[in-house]
Amino acid sequence: MHRLVLIRHGQSVWNLENRFTGWTDVDLSDQGREEAREGASQLLAEGLDFDVCHTSLLKRAIRTLWIVRDVMDRLWLPVRKTWRLNERHYGALQGLNKAETAAEYGEEQVFAWRRGYAVAPPPLEPSDSRWPGLDLRYDDLPRADLPVGESLEQTIERTMPYWHDVIVPDLQAGRRVLVVAHGNSLRGLVKHLDGLDEQAIMDVNIPTGIPLLYELDQDMRPLAKKYLGNSEAVAKAQAEVAGQGRAG
Amino acid sequence: MHRLVLIRHGQSVWNLENRFTGWTDVDLSDQGREEAREGASQLLAEGLDFDVCHTSLLKRAIRTLWIVRDVMDRLWLPVRKTWRLNERHYGALQGLNKAETAAEYGEEQVFAWRRGYAVAPPPLEPSDSRWPGLDLRYDDLPRADLPVGESLEQTIERTMPYWHDVIVPDLQAGRRVLVVAHGNSLRGLVKHLDGLDEQAIMDVNIPTGIPLLYELDQDMRPLAKKYLGNSEAVAKAQAEVAGQGRAG
Repeated sequence: MHRLVLIRHGQSVWNLENRFTGWTDVDLSDQGREEAREGASQLLAEGLDFDVCHTSLLKRAIRTLWIVRDVMDRLWLPVRKTWRLNERHYGALQGLNKAETAAEYGEEQVFAWRRGYAVAPPPLEPSDSRWPGLDLRYDDLPRADLPVGESLEQTIERTMPYWHDVIVPDLQAGRRVLVVAHGNSLRGLVKHLDGLDEQAIMDVNIPTGIPLLYELDQDMRPLAKKYLGNSEAVAKAQAEVAGQGRAG
Repeated sequence: MHRLVLIRHGQSVWNLENRFTGWTDVDLSDQGREEAREGASQLLAEGLDFDVCHTSLLKRAIRTLWIVRDVMDRLWLPVRKTWRLNERHYGALQGLNKAETAAEYGEEQVFAWRRGYAVAPPPLEPSDSRWPGLDLRYDDLPRADLPVGESLEQTIERTMPYWHDVIVPDLQAGRRVLVVAHGNSLRGLVKHLDGLDEQAIMDVNIPTGIPLLYELDQDMRPLAKKYLGNSEAVAKAQAEVAGQGRAG
């Protein structure tokens, strides 16, 4: 049996301000740090341990993993970072307050951008200071592959090669794997593992900071799945995620 | 020209208590954290940046690197951790107060253990709770290679393959390399780079938290070398290191 734990990073300072974040490299809020500590305590309480960790190139995920490893006294674990686990790229919407965007474009358009499976936001142009080609950390990424505004479908398409090429080989080698990433990159993994269709994955809201444990068979099919936390905390966190992006 | 920066981790809570630390996984003291922040500020002031980082499997080095990356806003840098950059293994002396050890064995014996190039401390037995074979992080290390009490010579011998096999290829690929490690593993690198003999390297005291910048030619020979900090801070830090291990 293989063990895999997924954690969505804790609340960021932009979640707090209800802004489209995407690849903007904002940090955790104080609450986000506390969520990470709480998640790590749940892992300890469950007696879970890891051999290898994977995360994105964004600091809210990396810091969540730092906090988890610190609480678990596992600073020494190997960590691999990849743009493929980054959050969905929100294109020209990045940095905009979600409520303001809704007031300007209408709630329906915002909802479509956030939840339409194949709907991409307006793209970032290379002349835009937010264009990811200007960011050192993506220097090794071929310009043709550089996301400038992704649909959920595109996000999942660039996430999944990392699952197949890197995470599955880790699991097959008997390693216990921890993935700390983002709402939409994790949706890709959950869609694949749970065999969900496009509509079903859009209704999945992964709560922040609450570890999601999968037990997988030798063919990487789920034998069991559960959130580590009390059910009240899980329901509350999911409701908060669902409530974002409503103007008001 | 290749750029390499070496940093010795900041003060640990056992440095403070003047105990033989070695592979004991003690954390940074508050002063050690401050040293790491100060070192990072010096790197920023010098306009230095990095593409890849290497550190040991011990938390005082890993946390120093966390703090440096945090101050430099470089959480996303790839980091490779290895036992080969660990501190010298102090065998059965690990955990003993240096002054007490000196009082029991005599100052000369302690000085020989610390500074005799080929003198190994009494080894740890597998029955000892401090035996590194009991520590998960060394599970992949063949038992025959597991250090249980090293001379400085042995420490340098197991450090150098990592220089040749991993760090040099990084430099040759044009990467700017940061190494955060320990007094004696860094001595190995400095002995090699500066072409020092056994006596000379024992007289080198690398200060904690002060970045040591090497500029190397294509054959990895030093063109220039300097500590990043004001000369007073460097001299003071070196004097503090030299003063440890004297019973008093």
